[in-house]
Amino acid sequence: MIYLDNSATGKPLKAVVDAYTLALEEDYFNISSPYSNALSTEKKMAKAKKIICDAINCKESELIFTSGGTESDNTALNLAKDNSEIIVSCYEHHAVLNYAESLKKRNIKVILCPVNKSGVVEKETLENLVNENTSLVSIMHVNNEIGAINDIKMLCSAVKEKNPNTMFHSDGVQAFMHICADIKELGVDLYSISAHKIHGPKGIGALYIKKGVPFTPFISGGGQQENKRSGTVNVPSIIAFSQAVSQLKNGFSQNIKEIKDRYISLLSKISDVKFICPDSAPNILSVAFLGVKASSLQNALENDVIIGKGSACTSRSSKVSHVLEAIGLPLNIAESTIRISFGAFNTIEEADQAVEKIEYYVNYLRKYKRK
Amino acid sequence: MIYLDNSATGKPLKAVVDAYTLALEEDYFNISSPYSNALSTEKKMAKAKKIICDAINCKESELIFTSGGTESDNTALNLAKDNSEIIVSCYEHHAVLNYAESLKKRNIKVILCPVNKSGVVEKETLENLVNENTSLVSIMHVNNEIGAINDIKMLCSAVKEKNPNTMFHSDGVQAFMHICADIKELGVDLYSISAHKIHGPKGIGALYIKKGVPFTPFISGGGQQENKRSGTVNVPSIIAFSQAVSQLKNGFSQNIKEIKDRYISLLSKISDVKFICPDSAPNILSVAFLGVKASSLQNALENDVIIGKGSACTSRSSKVSHVLEAIGLPLNIAESTIRISFGAFNTIEEADQAVEKIEYYVNYLRKYKRK
Repeated sequence: MIYLDNSATGKPLKAVVDAYTLALEEDYFNISSPYSNALSTEKKMAKAKKIICDAINCKESELIFTSGGTESDNTALNLAKDNSEIIVSCYEHHAVLNYAESLKKRNIKVILCPVNKSGVVEKETLENLVNENTSLVSIMHVNNEIGAINDIKMLCSAVKEKNPNTMFHSDGVQAFMHICADIKELGVDLYSISAHKIHGPKGIGALYIKKGVPFTPFISGGGQQENKRSGTVNVPSIIAFSQAVSQLKNGFSQNIKEIKDRYISLLSKISDVKFICPDSAPNILSVAFLGVKASSLQNALENDVIIGKGSACTSRSSKVSHVLEAIGLPLNIAESTIRISFGAFNTIEEADQAVEKIEYYVNYLRKYKRK
Repeated sequence: MIYLDNSATGKPLKAVVDAYTLALEEDYFNISSPYSNALSTEKKMAKAKKIICDAINCKESELIFTSGGTESDNTALNLAKDNSEIIVSCYEHHAVLNYAESLKKRNIKVILCPVNKSGVVEKETLENLVNENTSLVSIMHVNNEIGAINDIKMLCSAVKEKNPNTMFHSDGVQAFMHICADIKELGVDLYSISAHKIHGPKGIGALYIKKGVPFTPFISGGGQQENKRSGTVNVPSIIAFSQAVSQLKNGFSQNIKEIKDRYISLLSKISDVKFICPDSAPNILSVAFLGVKASSLQNALENDVIIGKGSACTSRSSKVSHVLEAIGLPLNIAESTIRISFGAFNTIEEADQAVEKIEYYVNYLRKYKRK
């Protein structure tokens, strides 16, 4: 079985499993306690945090741990000011879109920023939407379905020029360890990341909060994490998260890029193929085989190759994805679009076999349909 | 070293570590995906959920998983209606108290319900505070510092009689698997539980939401958990959580009760000892050695016996706990109060040795002080 689906390609690395297991056995102490075992656990946790902060070039005081990308996104958007306006791109993850919707009860106007046909937010489009009442903008770094990369540095700078008081958040869940390396370079105020998208454990993510950004906790209670995110700190998961970062540092995205290029080259030979977003991030390839329904291809391949369709969150639904709609893809192409994801467990070698199967079923389904 | 501190007595069971490790290796699939491995993971997760639901006698549709007790409490309190009143006991965990405070911006009046000198909420006191505008009441089942047990069934019924539309939440984090067995018997609308207090992993908890209770998600996004709590479902943690429940089912609280009784009997022989809440839950024993500062005793014992002082969340702070203040304990007694917690790793046999050390240092500190 070859896995080309985000849900499966996110398998935790062996070193992550080992780190978690060890931490569960050794570092279950509550780091808020005052005795030496708890202090030793706190030291390990500080070391783990530094590894993660270094990977995006921020200070430890600028990062809080959350239960994952969704909580990070909610926490960021919660910082929007009452009675203000916020702008989010129309193809954000639902963790942004649905939370934004809920802000309307705080009299916050939610403005959806369109994306162009290449799947990116254009500078002019965005800056025209910013006004003096815009308290927050949220534009994802890499789109989770098509892999389109937004030029966050340019967009953030354009927004700040129009209104220096507007906070800029970016959902970096799909970008982290694949393309994002330097958060300071991007210039954003807030940035969400998640462990399980980079072969870490589920249930742990983080939010970068630039020094000086006015912050109100989303989850409140015992005052952990310098009062920015309450709840007993999940040390074993944080240690395992840092292990994933350490392991992937060297050459991870380069390997994945080579694998993706190989797939593009092989899949190009199939007739009537359309790459939705050719300049996408290395981990995501969105491709349509005209005339073949994505769901039919997914089912046909089930015993050989696992592929995605839309995002996993909504993949059991039959509706066309809001992302493909946002980039203005005609319905017939959108319905034929599959998502291929790559991770550390994929190899260049398996590409021939995977594409052979894909080609076989694409041809089979086209033939079957004609009869 | 003998651990009598909640933070350490919560060490994960071997079976929990094994279950987590196995699940990380086998069940990392996203259960929202449509292929067979993901479906198999979903089945295991459903089985795990049933074990947890059975332990409190609720239906699977009445439980959502969260990132822990703090999120569960926040989620419950978030259901309070705008422009209404809520009542919380004055010695709740800060996950309730601090979140309640934040509700004031929604024009919600927060009324603190006092507790009596025995450390429990009295029926008459509570019902006198309820009026037609009370949208929610939150009274913890077992207090985390002194172990006092509230008669939730009686309190809930009294509240409902006064205002049937008032939602009743109880923070059951310290009660779960120790005293709470039947949520239906309690009659509450909402009930918070957490895995790491019962030797499960950190970062996973749950909220019981009685069928029919109007619910608004606290964390929103991809619509997981029937749209009640978004975010990729943390299956390995849920499986490990259920493993803790399975392991503890038989005789866990009975064993702990015997250990606690042994400690009470041994500690009684020390002069000028005061048990703060003698009828407390089996897992918590709050006790003061008059004339001996809790922090001095904690430090003196550090190489032999680890004890608590207040709750771990605030244990590095030097302030007297809000709980001890709430039950009207004079300052000199409050400052001398330590918290002893028991878990599955404690034994009756270690009690003699632990109490011997405690007695030695209590006498030493009393003598030292006099000089």
